[in-house]
Amino acid sequence: MTRQTTPTAARSTSTKGHRIMHIGLIGLGKMGFNMRERLRRAGIEVTGYDRNQDLADVASTDELIAAVPAPRIIWIMVPAGEITDKVVAELSEKLSEGDLVIDGGNSRFTEDQRHAALLEDKGLRFADCGVSGGVWGLENGYGLMAGGDAADIERAMPVFDALRPEGDRADSFVHVGEVGAGHYAKMVHNGIEYGLMQSYAEGYQLLAAKDIITDLPGTFRAWQKGTVVRSWLLDLLIKALDEDPGLETIDDYVEDSGEGRWTVEEAIANAVPAPAITAALFARFESREDSSPAMKMVSALRHQFGGHATRPAK
Amino acid sequence: MTRQTTPTAARSTSTKGHRIMHIGLIGLGKMGFNMRERLRRAGIEVTGYDRNQDLADVASTDELIAAVPAPRIIWIMVPAGEITDKVVAELSEKLSEGDLVIDGGNSRFTEDQRHAALLEDKGLRFADCGVSGGVWGLENGYGLMAGGDAADIERAMPVFDALRPEGDRADSFVHVGEVGAGHYAKMVHNGIEYGLMQSYAEGYQLLAAKDIITDLPGTFRAWQKGTVVRSWLLDLLIKALDEDPGLETIDDYVEDSGEGRWTVEEAIANAVPAPAITAALFARFESREDSSPAMKMVSALRHQFGGHATRPAK
Amino acid sequence: MTRQTTPTAARSTSTKGHRIMHIGLIGLGKMGFNMRERLRRAGIEVTGYDRNQDLADVASTDELIAAVPAPRIIWIMVPAGEITDKVVAELSEKLSEGDLVIDGGNSRFTEDQRHAALLEDKGLRFADCGVSGGVWGLENGYGLMAGGDAADIERAMPVFDALRPEGDRADSFVHVGEVGAGHYAKMVHNGIEYGLMQSYAEGYQLLAAKDIITDLPGTFRAWQKGTVVRSWLLDLLIKALDEDPGLETIDDYVEDSGEGRWTVEEAIANAVPAPAITAALFARFESREDSSPAMKMVSALRHQFGGHATRPAK
Amino acid sequence: MTRQTTPTAARSTSTKGHRIMHIGLIGLGKMGFNMRERLRRAGIEVTGYDRNQDLADVASTDELIAAVPAPRIIWIMVPAGEITDKVVAELSEKLSEGDLVIDGGNSRFTEDQRHAALLEDKGLRFADCGVSGGVWGLENGYGLMAGGDAADIERAMPVFDALRPEGDRADSFVHVGEVGAGHYAKMVHNGIEYGLMQSYAEGYQLLAAKDIITDLPGTFRAWQKGTVVRSWLLDLLIKALDEDPGLETIDDYVEDSGEGRWTVEEAIANAVPAPAITAALFARFESREDSSPAMKMVSALRHQFGGHATRPAK
Repeated sequence: MTRQTTPTAARSTSTKGHRIMHIGLIGLGKMGFNMRERLRRAGIEVTGYDRNQDLADVASTDELIAAVPAPRIIWIMVPAGEITDKVVAELSEKLSEGDLVIDGGNSRFTEDQRHAALLEDKGLRFADCGVSGGVWGLENGYGLMAGGDAADIERAMPVFDALRPEGDRADSFVHVGEVGAGHYAKMVHNGIEYGLMQSYAEGYQLLAAKDIITDLPGTFRAWQKGTVVRSWLLDLLIKALDEDPGLETIDDYVEDSGEGRWTVEEAIANAVPAPAITAALFARFESREDSSPAMKMVSALRHQFGGHATRPAK
Repeated sequence: MTRQTTPTAARSTSTKGHRIMHIGLIGLGKMGFNMRERLRRAGIEVTGYDRNQDLADVASTDELIAAVPAPRIIWIMVPAGEITDKVVAELSEKLSEGDLVIDGGNSRFTEDQRHAALLEDKGLRFADCGVSGGVWGLENGYGLMAGGDAADIERAMPVFDALRPEGDRADSFVHVGEVGAGHYAKMVHNGIEYGLMQSYAEGYQLLAAKDIITDLPGTFRAWQKGTVVRSWLLDLLIKALDEDPGLETIDDYVEDSGEGRWTVEEAIANAVPAPAITAALFARFESREDSSPAMKMVSALRHQFGGHATRPAK
Repeated sequence: MTRQTTPTAARSTSTKGHRIMHIGLIGLGKMGFNMRERLRRAGIEVTGYDRNQDLADVASTDELIAAVPAPRIIWIMVPAGEITDKVVAELSEKLSEGDLVIDGGNSRFTEDQRHAALLEDKGLRFADCGVSGGVWGLENGYGLMAGGDAADIERAMPVFDALRPEGDRADSFVHVGEVGAGHYAKMVHNGIEYGLMQSYAEGYQLLAAKDIITDLPGTFRAWQKGTVVRSWLLDLLIKALDEDPGLETIDDYVEDSGEGRWTVEEAIANAVPAPAITAALFARFESREDSSPAMKMVSALRHQFGGHATRPAK
Repeated sequence: MTRQTTPTAARSTSTKGHRIMHIGLIGLGKMGFNMRERLRRAGIEVTGYDRNQDLADVASTDELIAAVPAPRIIWIMVPAGEITDKVVAELSEKLSEGDLVIDGGNSRFTEDQRHAALLEDKGLRFADCGVSGGVWGLENGYGLMAGGDAADIERAMPVFDALRPEGDRADSFVHVGEVGAGHYAKMVHNGIEYGLMQSYAEGYQLLAAKDIITDLPGTFRAWQKGTVVRSWLLDLLIKALDEDPGLETIDDYVEDSGEGRWTVEEAIANAVPAPAITAALFARFESREDSSPAMKMVSALRHQFGGHATRPAK
């Protein structure tokens, strides 16, 4: 019942009397909530659990397990780190032999092998899947990067097919390699994303700084078709400028969420120079500083040797 | 007779007996040659001149000027710097009052005002136009960024409309500002392009360095739909890996062609931090070094203080 | 009467009845004021002019020229750019054939050849001299990098010897090359200085961020003797922390004064990667931004694709 | 018997009949060998062990423990990581309650707490000490950064005093904080060292690239006295150029040894921007690449969009 190309295929087979796939989904935040909706639209039955009962279909993980027929597929979509750890640990106690857990969150790839080993001890299977697409994934479909054994990946293919955009599977889904490889690819994807955003942002600031540029939003808009720098991020940039041409309502404080840091750490671990991605990461760190101790020191040093005036701290 | 949206519009008006636009095009290299073809397909008459007589329609600039009806539009598409200077100087001597010269090459924006002033002294008009799209522009259309007086830009609009992709003009053409603004926008566009390429390239190297990634080309291919990093450059990257999955036939020597350097110089001149774009530029410099004097010095210093062995020069 | 090693030598020859060198000094700011004092302590007669009459020995350039015996040495120590241009232009009109002008300010090396040509037309000589040492130069002596013809450099050697620290001339003075080479070397010196300060400053911030470091100033102090990173700048850093252990009175706003920018521009012009020096320059640009347009854009993009909350602008 | 300022003090007390301190030293490589010698010159008795029997005073760790009177001080000076782990584990089995182990190698600070806990279980004490000074430490003395409990640090003070240069203790020794703080400070010290070396090296390459610089070694030499960039590393740079003015015998391949990587990892962990130090690290990575996969990709992309020729791989 593997669907080759379109979500509608999955739906139509179900109308032909085949067993409808029914999975569990833990975590119904910004991403999980939309994914449940997209899976359902594709004809996949989903029982969703979230600590927020307003979003959840069931009241507990136990109820979720009871609701999903074995052998189960349970998709985890919760914050990486402690919370994912806790969910995996709980599932390792409660699931039945042969059940498959897929971590679709943004876990570090190094966590995956630990989770797989924990589950394997109980006769459970594990796969990881990097998911890209953000809030647009509900309508556009998600880009998916999976890691795990081929049989496990194949088993979950209807889920992957429902989540990804229509069209050739290879354009939006890849079985990257063994357990952890999916999250590794997603991590690098996000590292690249940091570099792309930083590049556009530097260009934006340069154009904004130059008075001969009298149509700044129009310049970006004109790059949408035909130019070398056209991209989905550029489309979003144009959308952002449509909503607020001078970005006046937005502060320059930028969070980072793990994958950028891990990408640089992997660059270091593998002796790969990654100056553009690292520049993007450091720019975010800088954006969050009220005052830079380093630059206070540079100011202090200039004062010491050159008598250059320092500014008094505000 | 301004065409609002499509090249075919321009062609159809010409069949209705309106005067067909006829322009001169100087420079028929990789870009100019394709642009002549695209203009002709859109129903614009083009007389092209190039020093390479195999490509040229006429044997000299004089013949070109004689062939194009006044008031003329002459589009220059020759290498920036000395050659563009020479062509502009020659045109300033030979054109008639009211003729319009458009520099579509990759001139530095600072050259434009000089060229405009030189031509204005002779009663001639000048506009600059950044052109993006590379070898794909013939089929896809070019992204265009124009600088100059509104009346001059309006006058050349059929040419811009023919060169750009079909669809809304604002998606592929912008009148950025006064003379020089078009090339400024194109310069920043190319600076961003440097940063985008470097970001993908760093990600590529990271994925290539990790043995758990067993389908490297497939990973990039799966990013085409749905992910945040999808772009035209990503499509080209996939095409490059299709042609040579390990890039084994390609050396790591990368040229740079001016706009990247100028972008960083403008960043400096305007006190705009541009670390990602600059990282991309420096990476190219490094790629061209047979041996780095700086790193010889670091090696020498490590030897001096720590007794760390240096490698003998090859 | 060239003094080989020490300022006292110059002084002693003068007491033996030799002609005492007498030079003109234009510009008595932080640097020029101290240099006049150091020259006088070494037995060189100095007539100083400054627009600030409280500092000046004479009321005008004309009076200065009248006071200094020909063939004259006139040392310029005024801000680079327009003011130096103006002083050189005035001297080119008023000096006598064979007089030697030395620009000891922080002019860009590209200015030197222009100044030399202007003076040469009037039969005047020109040399450039990079001067390092800041406010400590009065007591410690200055490091000097001279550019010009050998004969001109030799003629001014008593001045150089008086300005530099005692000891071997080669440890504090170099005739780098032709006109402009002195300022080029000084420019690179300052570029290195940017990188050194940034490196210490980054280390400072890292130590300050870590709670297990309970004696931060003491850590730097302990690096003064014995470690690989010991330097004069480290001594000043310790002094700064002595005066204000948490740098609490100092703002993180850092100016830049030309040489850093020129160094990066020369790196670009010569295709030399200079990532550390450039990082130091960009860090200063960032330090002066109240709000970063680039980081507003990154925040806007994250919001667009991921629904990540932006912070409202303050 | 704490010596306040000079090694000779320690020696003289020993001649007055006081008990001579006697410690064990494990690891007699480039650093340990010299340190044994310096300790002995200061009147401290040292029993040294190394796997290389040509260097060792005893044939085994057991013999070393037997030779050193309890309560013992055992200084470890072996490569960080597995070898240090192994030595600490062995000592934890063999030492007697109250013995103090000092790790003077380049261990990551995160290892120290693990080692301390392991030893504490057996009633043993642990301190860490960052040691800087390289091969020059034998003659100049070492800069020392210690972490641990005050009583342990105090107990080992005669050792620290013997190792560091004469003069005020605070100029070359610091008790940075608890266990791990010494190695943390040393790690940051080395990160700064990376940045300093890279800064000089970039300046060197810039000067070397410019033909108007006719005395390159002389320029560096003239910076030794008086300039802002004078430092011990500059002295070594001059020495390196004395030995090989064009660095022609030295390859540009540069190793890195852990602390630089850890510094950047700590920068990331603490959200501290460290662009100059990171640039220095990445420059070393680049120096070791025969061919850059990233730059192959940039070349491939330029070819794809612009038809720019790629160079065939060598």
